[in-house]
Parts: sequence; C-alpha cells; structure tokens
Amino acid sequence: MTSTATSLKGQPLDKAVLDAILRRRLFYTPSFEIYGGVGGLYDYGPPGCSLQANIVDLWRKHFILEEDMLEIDCTVLTPHNVLKTSGHVDKFADWMCKDPKTGDILRADHFVEAILEARLNGDKEARGQQVEDKDDPKKKKKKAKAEAVKLDDALVIEYEEVLARIDNYDGPQLGELIKKYGLKNPATGMMPSDPVAFNLMFQTSIGPSSNLPGYLRPETAQGQFLNFAKLLDFNQGQMPFASASIGKSYRNEISPRAGLLRVREFLMAEIEHFVDPQGGKKHFRFHEVEHIELVLLDRDTQLAGKTTTRKIAVGRAVKEGLVDNETLGYFLARIHLFLERVGVDLSKMRFRQHMQNEMAHYACDCWDAELFTTSGWVECVGCADRSAYDLSVHAKKTGAPLVVRERREEPLVFDEWQVDLEMKKFGPMFKKDAKAVETALLATSQEQRERLATQLGEAGKVTLEVPGVENGKVDIGKDSIKIEFRKRIENTREFTPNVIEPSFGIGRILYALIEHNFWTRGIDTGDEARSVLSFPPAVAPTKVLLVPLSSSAEFKPIIKKLSQRLRNLGVSNRVDDSSASIGKRYSRNDELGTPLGITVDFQTVQDGTITLRDRDSTSQVRADEGRILEAIKSIVDGNKDWKKIASELPKFEGQEIEVAAR
Amino acid sequence: MTSTATSLKGQPLDKAVLDAILRRRLFYTPSFEIYGGVGGLYDYGPPGCSLQANIVDLWRKHFILEEDMLEIDCTVLTPHNVLKTSGHVDKFADWMCKDPKTGDILRADHFVEAILEARLNGDKEARGQQVEDKDDPKKKKKKAKAEAVKLDDALVIEYEEVLARIDNYDGPQLGELIKKYGLKNPATGMMPSDPVAFNLMFQTSIGPSSNLPGYLRPETAQGQFLNFAKLLDFNQGQMPFASASIGKSYRNEISPRAGLLRVREFLMAEIEHFVDPQGGKKHFRFHEVEHIELVLLDRDTQLAGKTTTRKIAVGRAVKEGLVDNETLGYFLARIHLFLERVGVDLSKMRFRQHMQNEMAHYACDCWDAELFTTSGWVECVGCADRSAYDLSVHAKKTGAPLVVRERREEPLVFDEWQVDLEMKKFGPMFKKDAKAVETALLATSQEQRERLATQLGEAGKVTLEVPGVENGKVDIGKDSIKIEFRKRIENTREFTPNVIEPSFGIGRILYALIEHNFWTRGIDTGDEARSVLSFPPAVAPTKVLLVPLSSSAEFKPIIKKLSQRLRNLGVSNRVDDSSASIGKRYSRNDELGTPLGITVDFQTVQDGTITLRDRDSTSQVRADEGRILEAIKSIVDGNKDWKKIASELPKFEGQEIEVAAR
Repeated sequence: MTSTATSLKGQPLDKAVLDAILRRRLFYTPSFEIYGGVGGLYDYGPPGCSLQANIVDLWRKHFILEEDMLEIDCTVLTPHNVLKTSGHVDKFADWMCKDPKTGDILRADHFVEAILEARLNGDKEARGQQVEDKDDPKKKKKKAKAEAVKLDDALVIEYEEVLARIDNYDGPQLGELIKKYGLKNPATGMMPSDPVAFNLMFQTSIGPSSNLPGYLRPETAQGQFLNFAKLLDFNQGQMPFASASIGKSYRNEISPRAGLLRVREFLMAEIEHFVDPQGGKKHFRFHEVEHIELVLLDRDTQLAGKTTTRKIAVGRAVKEGLVDNETLGYFLARIHLFLERVGVDLSKMRFRQHMQNEMAHYACDCWDAELFTTSGWVECVGCADRSAYDLSVHAKKTGAPLVVRERREEPLVFDEWQVDLEMKKFGPMFKKDAKAVETALLATSQEQRERLATQLGEAGKVTLEVPGVENGKVDIGKDSIKIEFRKRIENTREFTPNVIEPSFGIGRILYALIEHNFWTRGIDTGDEARSVLSFPPAVAPTKVLLVPLSSSAEFKPIIKKLSQRLRNLGVSNRVDDSSASIGKRYSRNDELGTPLGITVDFQTVQDGTITLRDRDSTSQVRADEGRILEAIKSIVDGNKDWKKIASELPKFEGQEIEVAAR
Repeated sequence: MTSTATSLKGQPLDKAVLDAILRRRLFYTPSFEIYGGVGGLYDYGPPGCSLQANIVDLWRKHFILEEDMLEIDCTVLTPHNVLKTSGHVDKFADWMCKDPKTGDILRADHFVEAILEARLNGDKEARGQQVEDKDDPKKKKKKAKAEAVKLDDALVIEYEEVLARIDNYDGPQLGELIKKYGLKNPATGMMPSDPVAFNLMFQTSIGPSSNLPGYLRPETAQGQFLNFAKLLDFNQGQMPFASASIGKSYRNEISPRAGLLRVREFLMAEIEHFVDPQGGKKHFRFHEVEHIELVLLDRDTQLAGKTTTRKIAVGRAVKEGLVDNETLGYFLARIHLFLERVGVDLSKMRFRQHMQNEMAHYACDCWDAELFTTSGWVECVGCADRSAYDLSVHAKKTGAPLVVRERREEPLVFDEWQVDLEMKKFGPMFKKDAKAVETALLATSQEQRERLATQLGEAGKVTLEVPGVENGKVDIGKDSIKIEFRKRIENTREFTPNVIEPSFGIGRILYALIEHNFWTRGIDTGDEARSVLSFPPAVAPTKVLLVPLSSSAEFKPIIKKLSQRLRNLGVSNRVDDSSASIGKRYSRNDELGTPLGITVDFQTVQDGTITLRDRDSTSQVRADEGRILEAIKSIVDGNKDWKKIASELPKFEGQEIEVAAR
C-alpha cells in the first residue's frame, strides 16, 4: 500500500487540481461565499447533489430494501434531557487550547499531531531521507516550517508511538504531551493553554419562552432508540430487526478542514440493528457473506505502533475472535459490498478496529471502514456494537419499557414462597400507607418469607418493619395476607436488545469516491491533459449527454424527442447544444463523470441512427434509436457493461471520434 | 363546496379516528414521546417515511427532471448577516401576547380568531341555527365554552369581516381588536397583554468562540439566491433557468398545532425560477398548460369578505390579468398537475390569492394552493413572484454581481460627452487623491461635461469641485484629460432577474393526502367498519403485500422468491406471514394503503399460479407468476389501472375472497 494518493490509473493525484475542478464544475462550493463563507459549511451544486442522491438511493436499496429495515425520519431538534441521558451533554466534546497571544483556538490533538509530524520530517531531512508527502496542503504548509533538526533515535520512536495512538489521549494527557515536548504554536512561538473540553453540539432553544434548551442532533441514532418500543410493535414483536435513518446531523467542529472531510453539517445514514444478546449474536444470513475477504487492521497491531493489514475472510475473522460476533461481521461484509458497489477502489479500503480506550465505554467492539485519500486514511463508515447501553439508559431515565418480551419455549419453573394480599381488607387497613407496606412485603427475601409464614401460622399475624409507617413496624392479620410455598411458572423472557450500529458519513464517502474515480487522460500520449471522473453508471450524476453535431435546426426536434424518451426510461440526461466542438463538449462532460454520450448528426436525419460513446474508452457504436436506448438502459441498470455493448453493436469511427479522442 | 371534511367516499371524516390509526400504524408519532414530547416535533415511522419519500420522488420527476432544473443542497445553518439582509432577522416574526395571570403565551391572531368564532357560534346557537363543525378537536373545546349569546346583526357582520381578513392585521391592530371587543382568555378570564413580535427563527452560534451568531434557515430559498451567479455559470449563461432544493427548514412556532399542519421542523421543496423581467415574463411552455382549469379565489372576492371560487382556464386567467403573468400561471398549472398526480382530491383544492398587505412588500403577486381538511383550508404550496428583491438586496450588501449580462441583438448607440484620462500623468499629479478626483469626474452630468469641454478648449485646463481634496477645487491640465462628444455603443445588457417561487410544504401535502384518500369500508353494508387508505400506487408506502395462505413450510420458499423478484423490479413489498386470517391480514394492509396483495396457496404449489388482489375493490385475479408480476409493474408504473388488469386476467373467487371481503 502506497502512502501517497493516486488517481484511478495510478497517476499521482494533485489535490489542488482536483479541488479546482470540483469547484468550477459546482460539485460543491463553500456556503455563503459572497458573504465571506463560514468554515465547515458546503453547498452541493447540481452534480454533487445528484451524486449524493444516487449514493443514498443505492444505500436504501442495498440495506433498507434488501433487508426489510424499518426506515424512520426523526427530528434534528432534540431536547436537552435526551442528550443528557445519552451522555452527549457531558461527553461529546473535543479538547481545545488557546494561543495566549492571539486567542486563536486550536484543536489539541491536531496541534500535537502537526508539531510532532513536522519534527519527524525535520529529522528525516537532517538524515537525508525522503519526506513522505500526504498531499494535504494544510499540513504541507506546517511541514514547510519544520527545521531540519536531527532527533535522538529513541525520541523518533517515542514520537512515532505517540502519533500511532493520537486518538487515545484525553485532554490532560494531551496537555502533558505539550509540556513534555515543549510544543509551541508555529504562528506565535507560544505554548498554548491547557486543553479544555468543548462540547461539539449546536445549542438552541425551543418554543417562545426560551425555557426548553435543545441541540441539533450529533447523530441520528437517538431518535431510533427512543422509538424502539413502537418499532418493535410495528414489526409485530419479531426480533431481530433493524431501523434505519438518513438525515442531517451537526457537529460544531473546532477546526473544520477545507473540503468535505470535516464539516459542521453533514448527511448521515445510520442503521440500528437490534439483536438478542443471548446465543452469541448469530445472524441468519451470515452464510451468504462468510467468504467475503476483508482487509483488517486490528487492535493489537495498532497497539504495537504498526499499520500492517491482514486480508481475511469474514467467516474466519469471526471464528478466530478477531471480529466479536456474526452480526457485526455480517455488517462489515455488507459495508464492504456497498462501498464496492458505489465505486470505491478496493485497494484503498481497510477496516480499522478501535482500540479499547478509543471506544465508548459501553461498546464491545467497533470497526471503521477507512478509505485512502490525499488526506490519508479517512474514516467513512463506523460499525460498532453498542451493547444494550442506549436502550438501558433511556429506559432507566424515563421508565419506558424498551425491552423485548418473548414467550419461552421451555417455561422456567421456580419453587418458592409467595405472598398474596387480600386487597379489599389490606387497602382499608393501611389507607395511604398501603402502597408502602405492599412494597416492603414484596421486597422480602425467600428466607424472610419463610420466617413470616411460620409467624403467621403460629401467631395468626406477621409483624413487618416498614420505615416511616406507624412506629416503623406494622402488624398484618391472617385475614388479609397469605404466604405459601408453591410453584411459579415464568412463560415470558424479558431482555434489552443489543445494538449493532453501522453508521455512514455520506459526504466523506462521496469525496473519497471522487478521488478514487478521478484520472487524467492524455498524460501518457503527450496530448492535452483532460480530467475524467469514471463513476459507475449507477452513481454518475447524469447518465447521458446529448450532443447535436451543430446548431442546425433539423437536429433540435430529434434531440428533444431523445431527451424525453430517456426521461421516460428514468435515465437522467442533459443536452449540450453549445457551439463548442464535439470533442470539447464530450470532455467537459467526462469531467462531470457522464458515462455515455449520444451524437445526433446528418446521418441521423437520413436514416435515424445515432452514435453512443463510452466515457472511459472514448470508443463509439452506431445503431438505430431503439437499440441504442436499450443499450443505455442495460448499462445504467448494471445488466451489461460497455465491452458487451461494443461486441453487440456496430463500431463507429466517424470524424467526431477523432475530435473526441484527441 | 361543503365546509365539513369528508372521506374519499363522502362519508363524514372523524379526525380522532383517523389520528388514532395514523399513530397506531406509525405513519407519524410525536418525537421524544417517552420524554414527554416536544410541541411541534414529529417523527415519521416506516409508512410515513416511505410516503414522504415517494411524494418527494414524484416531485423531483415532475419538476426537476421534467424541466432540467438545477438541484442544489445548501446548508440549514445560516449566518446572521445573510438573514439580516434578506429581512428575516427584522421581519420574520409572529405576534404573541401573554396571559398576565399564568404567563401562558398566545399567538395573537389565533387568539382573536378563536374568541370571535366562539362568539359567532354562541350567536348562532342563541338564534337556533346549526353550528358549523370544522372537526378540529382543539377548536371544538374552545367552542364548547362559548355561551349562547345573541349578537347585534351589525356586530355579526363586523366579526365575519375581521375573520375573513385575519391574516392581514399586524400586532398593534390585533391589540386594538382585543381591546375593542374585550377579548378575554377563556382559561383565566383575563385580557392578554399587548402583542409583541416574536422572531420565529431558531438561533445558535457557529464555531468554538461563539462569535458567529447564526440561525436554522426558515426556508431553502436564500441558499439558492446566494449561489445564483455560480448556477448561471453552470447553466452556461442561459436564461431563464430554475434552481430547486429539497430540505428541512425550521420555524419556532409559538403555538404548534397537534399534527403535521404547524410544526417546528419540516421538509420543504422549493423552486426559484429566474426570469427576465422584460417582455412580460412569458414562459415558452405556457401553451402546454393554458387549457388547465384552476379553481381560483381572488383578492377582490376576499376583500369583499367572501370565499366564492371561480373555475377558469389558466390561459384566460393570465389574459384577464387575474394571474399576473405567464410564468406564474405556468407554475400554478404545474402545481395543480402535481397535486393531482400524487392523489389530492381536486374537489378539495383551490388557489387563493394573497391580499396586498398579506404579501411581502416586494412581491407582485402570490397564490397559495390550499387543500381542504378537517382543519379547514390549509396552505400547502405557495407560489409567489418575488420580483428582483432577493438578488438585489444580497448584491447590494455584498457587492457580488447577481446579474445576467447578455449580448444585445441590437446594440444601443448613444451620442454623448465622454471623459478620457491620461492615467500616467493624472495618477502622479493627484497621488492619494487620484481616485477621489476620478470619481468626481466620472460623476459629472452631460451638461457639466459640455461646459468642462468648452473650458478645456479655452483655458487649456478644467477646474472641478472635489470636496475634501486640496481647497475643494482642483485644476486638471489638457495633457492629462480629454473630453469629446462621440458615439458610445452598448453591446451588453445587464439585468437582475425576477424570481417566481413555487414553495411546497411536503408534510402538509402528505397530511392532506392522507385525509383525501381515507375512507371506511363496511359502513354502508352494515359490516364491521374497516379503514382504507386509497393512495395512488405511485405514492403508496408499500406496493405489494405477500401473504401465504397458512404457515405451511412449503409456502416459505415461494414467498421468498416472489419478494426477491419484486425487489429486483424495484417494487417495494412486505410479507405478512402471521397467523391472522387472510382477511385480517389484507385489511390491516388496506389501512396502510398497500394497493395490491398476492396470495400464495396450495394451488400455487401445484400449478405456480398466484392471486392478485386490488385494495379498493377487493376483487382478485389469478394467473401465473410472470403475468401477475407484469400486471403489478404496469400498475405501479401508472401504465394500467385495475379495471384494465381485471379485464385481461381471469377473475378469481376462492375462499379467501369471501374472508377478505367480509
């Protein structure tokens, strides 16, 4: 695995060039740019918006429809209480420090990481070694400031170990690292203040009287947990089942990066799969995926300060205990298949296991699907086993029964002392204290009950300690109480399900997908360099480009009819009838990732045939409208690829091809 | 037009019954209910979520794809400056009053409306007339408190006029009405405080240092306006064009209603159609819709205190000047067609024109598509001509050129005095004042220039007043200035487009759609009453129900294969293999609006045939799997209806039918 990002064709990937294209072609653009912009907020233009919609559409088919998940749409606005219970109010924070001179705010872990990396690079330079280039312009700037100073060999190892574990330090630990290594802000030469926690949720207040504090949700999960009982009921009580939500979430990042990788408002797609914790969390469809090979970077390897991955079938990974259970393994495989389907380069994908102190305390295992980009390895999907934590805390706080009750096949039988009360007499006897006395009675142990039964038989009454009632002791006569040793049969089992949570950052996947499908045509042949985005047809923003050979009026009705027919087939298309050359019009749509192009020329007017061009090979075929539309539909639906179409339809090599392929 | 809501079959519609079904079947449910809920926030469960997705999907096809609109996805978080410029910070408010005793907050217009309506009903009762019932339980409660007091005839007319114009009063006017009529809060018997403005935007702060105040957007429109220049560029400079956005917006309602009609977080779909204000705002596809008949309630009728509607072809409405222009008329017709397509009852739809003081001051015409429900007429789509207001204010504030520049076919030619400066000499002469002098020179009128030219010819220099420079007057010699009378040709025309904005509240449409498609089976025949939601197949949450006749194991693989084949056809389906009777299983899916049902029985095992049931008629046909799947696909795609299918395939009347139809 190279540590330097490359294009789809293995060419070095220049992030600055790609960024310029993405902005120019309006894939995305900084929000509110005419007002100076706001860090971490981006708008998607038409191609980005369509790419996003297509990824979400595939996600819905791959997960929700394929597995009959229950999709729900919960509100972003969330009252304080809910996020207090979930732990977000107290713990959903990053550590930030202030530069004492400028008041600039720095995210503590990023700060430590940047300075140590700069020092390591300075050391390499001093030793005459090549400095690795992660192609991140922001980091490059900081690196440039590193002086070529040779470090002790032991310190190099220490720095490298710190960097391998950078996600594991809390605020005080980061503060110690800053002091220990004397880390100063390059901008001011000052050591920053001790890290303090900064809660990442956007706060607001709900209602006119400002008395209900709330937040914008940081994840869609909580809404799904709160609806658990209703969803179980909707599912006719059947377990296991999964809910799913697609929607915006919000994190008030301290230092949002340029680009889509760390933003303050983002689209998430999350699944909460509810499973019985008993029986090893098996999954009934696991056999369908157990042969799928995953690239894993496990916990132990990372603890050793290494990043060596291992390719292993998910069936074996579960058997070996590397992945905690079948259900978790099932979803890792399904995530792998989804990312492959949308067009991720599998050689740039790995699953990294969270280390113990990186996970939430309640999680029992967690793996991130990471994609390699010019910013290094980026977490794009998280897949955690959250155990029963969320349902338990909300149930405890609200008293709502977020549990599953199921009939036991083999009822449990207990032989035990049981207390029966004659409420008609018992109630009037104790009046307002009746409830307290009853509670005290029901709280008695088996041993106590046995003693009470003896007492009742002998004295015709029992004497029970009930603090706060009468003089702390009450007498209950045998006409209102019965204590017997008999069988109790428990037919129902009650449990809190565990939750496996695959959680997708759609914007990050979208960005990685762009990098993985980007390449430059013409570099090898010495022709003019032209950018291409080779998206799979299913996710490409527009499927077909329609170009009339010239502005001749006779082409207009043909183009219009073709466009309408494609639309009726559900195939998105755009017409480019500008005066640019055919080649130029094709290449500016290669840059948008449009997989297919139709040319209408003078021959079309005569015999009704049209040409179809493939974006990736630039080769063309020619046939009548019916056959071409059929070919398009089969490519867009994923039933045929271009090679197949090219073998079925007559090849075309007219003048346009030469222009297009130049 | 009746003023009482009815079901699809004209039966009286009991909102309480319908609400209970919608909650029980999880169409939607109050958010955070286990925490006590938060007013105005609702979660969509699986059927609601799917219904919403299908409405949005049709919207995207009907508007965005059909008209090549540029879809963009902008952020919800919006900085203060943007909404200050747009006017929302100062004007996006409702009027609220406080009850002096309890501190309860009342929305002023709703308060006035409720009390006057109660008095009018009390008057009717006193006169022995029937009281109209709007079936709104909340209002009913208030009405119940109205005493049967007869009012003066003149006062009745006055109250009715106030009610007809209730949307037109500002805060001080509402305060006057409260005092004039002595309106008291029924809960306390107190007259509420004077109305004060309450801004409806949710506020938050962006970034770690809390120095950037922001809001959750109240509409998606602003993001589209801010990107205008980029979108125009993306559209290769061609006009007219439209952008569109689908996304959440937020309004901190003072008194959210129960249900989906007034909520604090909602999904909007908005179009901004940018059009040249010159030439009467024609639309090139207007001829396609001009015959469409719309039901209009115009401004003059409302001013007269009436609600009489008029059915008129949109072509004529534009010609008569009732609708301001073709583009606005085009979108009214397209909205009409969209609402028809999703399944709105056209007899419960009208377009109401805004009155002058109801519109924003910059709007030149505005019509709301209103749908009749148990809560009366509800605004579901707004369609406003916002003129050039938004682009103008943002351009003025930021200096960004939010304009269209186009080549004039006929260049404009001016004969005029023009000033040329020899900058090499002029600059050094005035140094830091050069800019001020140049600005003063270019600001001169034609008359002044003519005088200066004479002066320059006679004295070899001009003397110009420039406040603040030298002694307020400067001399410019003929070696650095030239003033000539000559031709100027203007090839480019620059203008700020006007905006036609169709704006859809998806949640309100969804709710009205549910009411319009709801009816009860069995009422007329004296059978058990069973609820049905007769959604058109295209929007129905699930298209096909799969039921095995019994839990017999041999049905399982058949059902599984059918489900997979339907999924491959893109047809959503659900299996109900519970132990309930076939009839019961069908009727609980009628309640979910599932249009088609397949039964697998013992005959299926023998000969491979299956039955297909129609939700609305409960009639069934039987054929082999291939023909049934083809029939399903043609119904879901809207190519055939049940009548056609029933005429093509053999009718089936087995035992299940009787159970199902009972």
